[in-house]
Formats: sequence, C-alpha cells, structure tokens
Amino acid sequence: MATELKDLTKRSENYSQWYNDLVVKADLAEQSAVRGCMVIKPYGYAIWEKMQQQLDRMFKETGAQNAYFPLLIPKSFLSREAEHVKGFAKECAVVTHYRLKASEEGNSVVVDPAAKLEEELIIRPTSETIIWNTYKNWIHSWRDLPLMCNQWCNVMRWEMRTRPFLRTSEFLWQEGHTAHATREEAEAEARTMLGVYARFAEEWMAVPVIQGVKSETERFAGALDTYTIEAMMQDGKALQSGTSHFLGQNFAKSFDVTFLNKENKPEYVWATSWGVSTRLIGALIMTHSDDNGLVLPPKLAPIQVVVIPIARNAEQLSAIDERLRPVIEGLRKLGISVKLDDADNKRPGFKFADYELKGVPVRLVMGGRDLENGTIELMRRDTLEKETLPIEGIVSHIQTLLDEIQANIYQKAKAARDARIYECDNYEEFKKRVKDGGFFLCHWDGTEETEARIKEETQATIRCVPFGVEQTSGIDMVSGKPATQRVIIARSY
Amino acid sequence: MATELKDLTKRSENYSQWYNDLVVKADLAEQSAVRGCMVIKPYGYAIWEKMQQQLDRMFKETGAQNAYFPLLIPKSFLSREAEHVKGFAKECAVVTHYRLKASEEGNSVVVDPAAKLEEELIIRPTSETIIWNTYKNWIHSWRDLPLMCNQWCNVMRWEMRTRPFLRTSEFLWQEGHTAHATREEAEAEARTMLGVYARFAEEWMAVPVIQGVKSETERFAGALDTYTIEAMMQDGKALQSGTSHFLGQNFAKSFDVTFLNKENKPEYVWATSWGVSTRLIGALIMTHSDDNGLVLPPKLAPIQVVVIPIARNAEQLSAIDERLRPVIEGLRKLGISVKLDDADNKRPGFKFADYELKGVPVRLVMGGRDLENGTIELMRRDTLEKETLPIEGIVSHIQTLLDEIQANIYQKAKAARDARIYECDNYEEFKKRVKDGGFFLCHWDGTEETEARIKEETQATIRCVPFGVEQTSGIDMVSGKPATQRVIIARSY
Repeated sequence: MATELKDLTKRSENYSQWYNDLVVKADLAEQSAVRGCMVIKPYGYAIWEKMQQQLDRMFKETGAQNAYFPLLIPKSFLSREAEHVKGFAKECAVVTHYRLKASEEGNSVVVDPAAKLEEELIIRPTSETIIWNTYKNWIHSWRDLPLMCNQWCNVMRWEMRTRPFLRTSEFLWQEGHTAHATREEAEAEARTMLGVYARFAEEWMAVPVIQGVKSETERFAGALDTYTIEAMMQDGKALQSGTSHFLGQNFAKSFDVTFLNKENKPEYVWATSWGVSTRLIGALIMTHSDDNGLVLPPKLAPIQVVVIPIARNAEQLSAIDERLRPVIEGLRKLGISVKLDDADNKRPGFKFADYELKGVPVRLVMGGRDLENGTIELMRRDTLEKETLPIEGIVSHIQTLLDEIQANIYQKAKAARDARIYECDNYEEFKKRVKDGGFFLCHWDGTEETEARIKEETQATIRCVPFGVEQTSGIDMVSGKPATQRVIIARSY
Repeated sequence: MATELKDLTKRSENYSQWYNDLVVKADLAEQSAVRGCMVIKPYGYAIWEKMQQQLDRMFKETGAQNAYFPLLIPKSFLSREAEHVKGFAKECAVVTHYRLKASEEGNSVVVDPAAKLEEELIIRPTSETIIWNTYKNWIHSWRDLPLMCNQWCNVMRWEMRTRPFLRTSEFLWQEGHTAHATREEAEAEARTMLGVYARFAEEWMAVPVIQGVKSETERFAGALDTYTIEAMMQDGKALQSGTSHFLGQNFAKSFDVTFLNKENKPEYVWATSWGVSTRLIGALIMTHSDDNGLVLPPKLAPIQVVVIPIARNAEQLSAIDERLRPVIEGLRKLGISVKLDDADNKRPGFKFADYELKGVPVRLVMGGRDLENGTIELMRRDTLEKETLPIEGIVSHIQTLLDEIQANIYQKAKAARDARIYECDNYEEFKKRVKDGGFFLCHWDGTEETEARIKEETQATIRCVPFGVEQTSGIDMVSGKPATQRVIIARSY
C-alpha cells in the first residue's frame, strides 16, 4: 500500500485521474460488473451513512416524514407530464419480462418469451409520477395539506459516460415530495429545502456553496423553477450538489390531484420535490482532498481519530496500550469515533500513509519515549502539522481541535473558491479564461440563444442566477443587449 | 374514521381479511399501481426505521459493515450456481432495454428497439452472485478474512399472489454476506446471526420464535444449511421471520474466490448470508394486534405515548395544555416519543379509536375534572385498562409501564403460542387437527417422500428441526419408519 500510495496521481498532473485513483485507493468505491454501476465499499458507505443521519434529522425537523414508493413505474405514467417524459425517456432501464427459463441446451437461462409484461415498467429515474398517482388518494381536503414525504432509495438513469459518485447509472439519493394548498407555500418550501441543503453542505461537509435559481434550459423536467446549490471543485469546475424544485400544479394536473379548500371548492395542489445523492461524496472529495489522499471534515469522518502505538517489543506495547486506554475511552465518551491500530503486521510508515490516504482528521502516535515523558504525538490531517503534547488534557484538546479542523477546512475551501469568482464583462476575455476554471459573474440578456452560444463555444453553462448578490443591470457580454442581472457561468461536472 | 373503524373485520370472522383491513386502516401500507408492489406509508415506514436502527446496531456489534452493491445483475451471473438459478429464475424482473422514444403518433412513449441490451439484466432477487463476483477482488489472503458486509436495499421477486408485507414483488430487506477462512467459522457465523434475529424478535418485537434448521427441500437455493426463526401467528400458522444460510464453498467455487492460507496455499472461501425483510412488520401485526387494531411493542412504536386534552373551551384548553407541558417534556427527556393531539376538529371518541387502531401503547387524557384534582387518565393499549392517577410521578410511572407492556405482550404471545405446540404421533389425528393451526412436533424419517406427502395431503410443511428441544428417537407417523428426531410441522404464510 505504501508503494501503491505513491501511485496516486498528483492533482497538478491530471486532476481527473487523481480523483479516479483516490476513489479506488481510499477504498470508497469501485466499478462493478454492471456497466455504469458502482459498488460503494464499506468506508465510502460509512460516509454516506453519516450524511444520511444528519440530513434525515434536518428533514424531519421541517416536518417531513419518510415513506417508500415502488421501484418500478408503469411506462404510461411517465408520459403524463409532457416535459417530464422528454427529460427522462432517453435514459430509462426498461423491464419487459418477469421470468427466465432454461435454454434449450440446458446450460444457461434465457428470457421466457411467454412472460412478457402487458405494459413495460421503468426503473424509477425519479418518483414524481408514481408518488403523485399515490397522493391522489391521500389528498382530499385542505386539512390533508401540507403533505411532506421523503424517501431514501436507489434510482437509475442510463448514463453513457459515468464516473464514480459524480455520474453513475444507478445511484443512491433521497427525494422529498411535498404537496401544498397555495403557490406561496410551495415556493417557500422549495426555498426552505434549498436552505437545508446549503446549511448541510457548509456546516457538515465544510463545502461552501452558492444558492441560486436555474435558467429555464437547466430546469428539472416538469418544474417551474429549479433552485440549486453550486460548489466549486479544486479545478475550478462547478458541481451541482443539490436541487429543489417548485413544480407548480404540473403534476397535480397530470395526475388529477385536487383538494377542497376552506370554501369547499376544488383546487389543484401545488408541489415541490428536492433531492441530494451520493454525488455529495464526489463534492466532498474534490473540495478538500490533496495529493496525499482524502481530507475529511471531522463531522462526516467515519474514523475521527486513529491511535497508533509504536513499540520495540510486546512488553512495551502492552505498557503503551495501557497508557492509551484512558485516552481512547475519554474520546469515546465524548462521542468521538476512535480506531486503535496496534496490528503488528504493518509498519508504522505504512499505517501513516494509509490513514492519510483515508483522510482521518487526527492521528495520535505513542512510542517508548512518549511513554517515558508522558507525551503523545498528534498530527492533524488538514495541515499535516505534527506536535508533541502532554497526555494530560489531550482528550479535551482533541475535542476542540476537531471543531477547529472543521472550521479550517471550510475557510480554506471558501478562500480558494472566493479567489476564483470573477466579474467579467468581455466575452473574448471570458472565452480565454473560462478554460482555467472559476465562476464567472456575467450579465445575461435572459435569452436561450445567448445561453446556447456560450455553451457551444466554451462548454460552460449558466449555473444559476445567484441569490444574495446585489444585482445591477448592464450589457450582455455576448449579445450586447441590455441585461438586468449577472449569472454564474462555469464549466461543470 | 370512527365509522370506518367499525368496518375492521373481526379476527374470528375472517383472520385474513382482518389483516388486510388493518394494514390499510392503520395507515401502514397500501397497494400501488404496480402489480404486487406496495407503498409503505409514513406510519408503517416509521416502524421499519425503528427496526432498522436496532438491527443495524446489532449487526455492527458483530463486526459487520454496511456497503452497497448494484441493483442489476447480469443474467449470466445467476446461472453460475446451479441450485441458485433454479430457485430464482422463475420470478425475475428482466431489464432488456435502456431507452424509450416517442411513439410514431407522438402522444406516448415506446421502447426503443435500437436500445436493446447485449446481455439482459435482472433486478436482484438476492445478491449472492454480484457480491461474490466482487469479493473475488477483495479477498487474497487469510488476513482479508473474515469479510462481513451487510446492505439495506430493495429486492424483487415476481410473486403471483401477494399480500402486504408478507409477500410482495418488491420488498425492503437487509442481506448480510460474509466470507470466512474455515467451515467452522462460517457455520458459527450463520448460527450467531440466527441468534441475533431471535434476540431481536423476542426482545424488540416481543415475538417468541423457535430457532431451527430447515429440511433440504426448504433450504435457500445454493445453501448447505438454512437456519430459520419461526413465529406463530394468532391463527396458528407459522411465519418464517428470518433466515441465515451456511453456503459452504458453493459461491466461492462458482465465482472462483480463493485465499492464501497461513501456509500460503490457496483455498476456497467459506460463506454465509442472512436476511430479514419488511415481512417482520407482518409478523408484528399478526402476533399482537386485536379487533380494535394494532398493538405495538413500546420498543418499536413510532408514538409511545399520545396525550389528549379534553376541554370545554379555549381558556380551559390552555390551562390543561399548560399542566401537560412538564409531563410531555419529562417524557421526552427520557427519550420517550410523545404526541400531543389537541386538534379541535376531531372529537375525543374519534381520537381514542384512531390511536387504538394505530397501536399507541399508552394514552393519557386530561379533562377539566382532572385539572382540578391534579389527576390524569391513563389507558394502556395492550390490556385496554384505564385508571386515573395523580399527575405527580406520572413520568416515571410511564417509564416503568412501557417496560411492563413490552414484557406483557411478549408473555401473552408466548403463552398463546406454547398452548398450541403439540406433540403428535398419529397421522390421522394430525390431519384432523392441523387445519386449526398450531405447531406439531412429530417424528420424521428424514425422507423427501414423507415430507412431500404431508405437504400434498395437508398443505402443512416441515418448518424446521428445532434447536433446544431434547430429541428422542421414535416412529415416523406417516411412513412408520424409524425416526431420530421430531420436527415442527405447520401450515404457514
């Protein structure tokens, strides 16, 4: 592994290869035998579990409840909402049969043609259609609203070019689907959930994000508005990290979902949906990690502290372990996850490299001299700084340090991002500079033509109209037409 | 709802109908638009979440880690293990295409014949094949063993006759897959996990179970031994509630998974797999519930205590709410989940019936007289007993009471089950009595012929060779041949 570690491509050499290497070498995920589908390995899945736990708490605080809807969607449901089917029909896994049988040679199985489904079923690419078909029976009166369900599940979109976590044919996600009595309430819900995602990204993932609204072209298929959080990766590219959609009455009309209002008159229901996926793990990796491996924020690290004793012999090892025990117990009492690695079949140097690769925020090492001196060596992964500290008080020191590391990697990411947000008013300059990454704040005339031209000529897209930015009018850098706002344009994953 | 509640079929009239009614009326689940697939509603899903949390803790204590493997399995993988494919080929959902396109009329979508997969993909009915194909790359030396992964996911088995929770085409479950260096270790692991399931069923679900080993006919497709926990429903039928399989080296050989042992010699790896599913919710319902609705064990009840104020007017309501607040806060501080229902649009009688239907273990009611007297009315769902108690001390009383209810419903279920376990040595008597339910402990000669004849003539099956029963030899009641053990025979779900 120590030699394998050396093989981790440097970011400066090939960022994309560095990412692919790191996902595999840090034991996060690997390609499976099924095209475009990955296996999420235990270490990668442990990060996802930590994300799930916190997001689930945050969703429930807003009043959402979890439920579960079927994996398979009748083909006809997809067609009900015209934009929706356009968006998803091209990447659907289709179930056509429900049985296999022995082949005539008898040594394999083949699809049984007698077991053909009357109507094909689609593996859900997203669940609006099956859920709104269900909500029809759950919603009768204004008293049944708001209805707020979330599900944690797998979805499938048949992607031609895939990358672990960032774009896979099957991925894990959560999808919230809410129903409201008024337009205002639904719009507020979509914005609330965007805020939840932004808070999670910044406070838990330590990933700074820009909140904003998508252009019409970039909207979710079937939405009136798509809100987004956009993060900047170390190569300056944007990663759309979570979206929340105001769906208007589109799905209510397609599935005929009405409620009796307080005046006893039927009205169509207003809808939102919102989701984040295992893509967040990609964002986490590409925001913080370095040429030595992962850098994980303490709040999401499966192992927060690794403890490694270094001893000359078994007797000394047992003395060191003895001295370490109260430290480990003290940390665990505070809810800090600790791994003691006293395996004797790997050399310390190998262990050091391996835990750096895995992004463990704090490493403690105790050797014979430390034992004599009552000290311990501490290394923090974010800065790679080492110091020797008295054992006395080490537990509370680490508790504070974990918060400090969490804050530091956020600040570092924010400073790096902020240094690459540019105002730009000149298209020639934009074309030159956009290749090197960064978010470009440019005036946009609001037309699809301009948007399409930028994309064609630079592969960059309008990421969003950002919130919280004071908007001034100006001139569209491409068309020369008047523009009322600046948008963020960037290349993206 | 009060009138709807009356429509709950009585168990004595039609147990099966009672079950189907209750699942829907208690808001646990409903049929979806997709044949054989259910929607798990928020209240039902909340029970599943509680089950998951506890099981997940127990699995992790044994050293298992969570991971995630692909939903889709290449058809050829299924054929690798001969018994396995026989068991699952007949009920597979098969993906044959990866794209839809607009129909020629343009008003719907059809499967795009140009997007046919080279090899069909099966929606996992269980994941041994894809996992062992992955383990091949993870296991090289004895140091990589044991390898113990679990995944929480959905699976699909195309069932012709389905019932909510008990048998659905798609269901949620967990599947553990472990790899070991020796036969003994793998067998011990399979037994350990059976023990975990039994402990969970008894201590958390309050469902007594019999642990045992399946006959060869009833084994999991590809296993050398299938261990089972069998519960008895109120109608005397058995419900297989969890299984743990010793797979020998079958999958290791099919997928060529070897390791270098301590002598540096390659050996095939030994395997187990084990799973429980949303079927457990069916077991929970059919063990404890009554003609008024669900009876939930406190440890798995989404709402443990419901609090209902009854007031003549708004002023009194606010005085009662004020008095209830410290009670509710006190309960929540102990980690007890409490719902305050002071909605004014439903009458108390309606609320009472609804929370009985939903199986909430403890109901507190406070009216004007209670407020004056410093008392509160408490009803426990398991016995339907009501008493009026001083508010002083009610919090700690409830804490104790929840444990008592948990113990009581277990004892009640155990007594009911034990009263219907019969030793039986006469086939004529067996045939008469098995119709009325119960577990029959009968000598069996160990042959498939006898087993098949019993099944054909009585629809009863050998549930297991029970553990923890002192076995004596005797005469098979069907064949008259010598038998070395008694097995449990029963009709089952």
